[in-house]
Amino acid sequence: MAKKIAVPLTNYFEDVEYTDPAKEFKEAGHELTVIGMEKGETIKGKQGDATVNSDAGIDDVNPNDFDALLIPGGFSPDQLRADDRFVTFVKHFMDEKKLVFAICHGPQLLITAKTLEGRKATGFKSIQVDMEYAGATVEDKEVVVCGDQLVTSRQPDDIPAFVRESLKLLQ
Amino acid sequence: MAKKIAVPLTNYFEDVEYTDPAKEFKEAGHELTVIGMEKGETIKGKQGDATVNSDAGIDDVNPNDFDALLIPGGFSPDQLRADDRFVTFVKHFMDEKKLVFAICHGPQLLITAKTLEGRKATGFKSIQVDMEYAGATVEDKEVVVCGDQLVTSRQPDDIPAFVRESLKLLQ
Repeated sequence: MAKKIAVPLTNYFEDVEYTDPAKEFKEAGHELTVIGMEKGETIKGKQGDATVNSDAGIDDVNPNDFDALLIPGGFSPDQLRADDRFVTFVKHFMDEKKLVFAICHGPQLLITAKTLEGRKATGFKSIQVDMEYAGATVEDKEVVVCGDQLVTSRQPDDIPAFVRESLKLLQ
Repeated sequence: MAKKIAVPLTNYFEDVEYTDPAKEFKEAGHELTVIGMEKGETIKGKQGDATVNSDAGIDDVNPNDFDALLIPGGFSPDQLRADDRFVTFVKHFMDEKKLVFAICHGPQLLITAKTLEGRKATGFKSIQVDMEYAGATVEDKEVVVCGDQLVTSRQPDDIPAFVRESLKLLQ
């Protein structure tokens, strides 16, 4: 069954960590909503390869309307977590045990939402110590699936494994 | 007495968080060494306002040759802490109780070096939860001085207070 996936995003996201999962999730019939600061915002990737127009602003959305969350990496998550609205939005998915897919720096939003305690996860090398301090058991693997709910990966190279495990849970 | 200050730096640093303290530290007679991945590297600020040539590469320096450490913010510290050589370098200053000045995202390097436990500090809003998890007592103030050794600030607006307290300890 088609799932509604929310994608919080801002500038300097890691291009392929949005474009590749987005392409495959859409091909599998799922619906993605890119959520920026405002609707219709032009959001640019760090590598200059991808430009995305936001489908909604953070004030326009209700997390209850979504089944799953995708958090691409790059410098996007760190900027989003400086905005309490995004932290509250993300916390909903973890609290409600909805599907959460976070890659690279994506777990930074999960740390600030204080939702990683007791979870098994991975992330980009630079944030692995942060994740451990936040109470996660960090595994340095291409993909870690925790409780049939949380899928995390480390970096662009891990995208195939990240997408494969995410699609399994979206079925 | 003139002090030797090491400045680990890479691209996307927050321009004024390097240029302003550097100017004032030099005017007070101190000597700064910008340390990049390699010597003579061109390092660009996030805002496009500042370009800095590194004075040394991380493999060329010995932390024993420096009295103090300045860590400007932006996206520079998160990239540096993905490189174990910079983490080891920074850890030396904290372990040896040398002067450490870190602003904005600068404390991310102190987290990864696991040196914030029991310290009083501040940092950019987005990393304050990370710092708390790392064992710091975080105060949301323009400048926090801990043990006459560690000076931290939150953001560019705090630079005057950051420089003022740092210069006091450099005397």
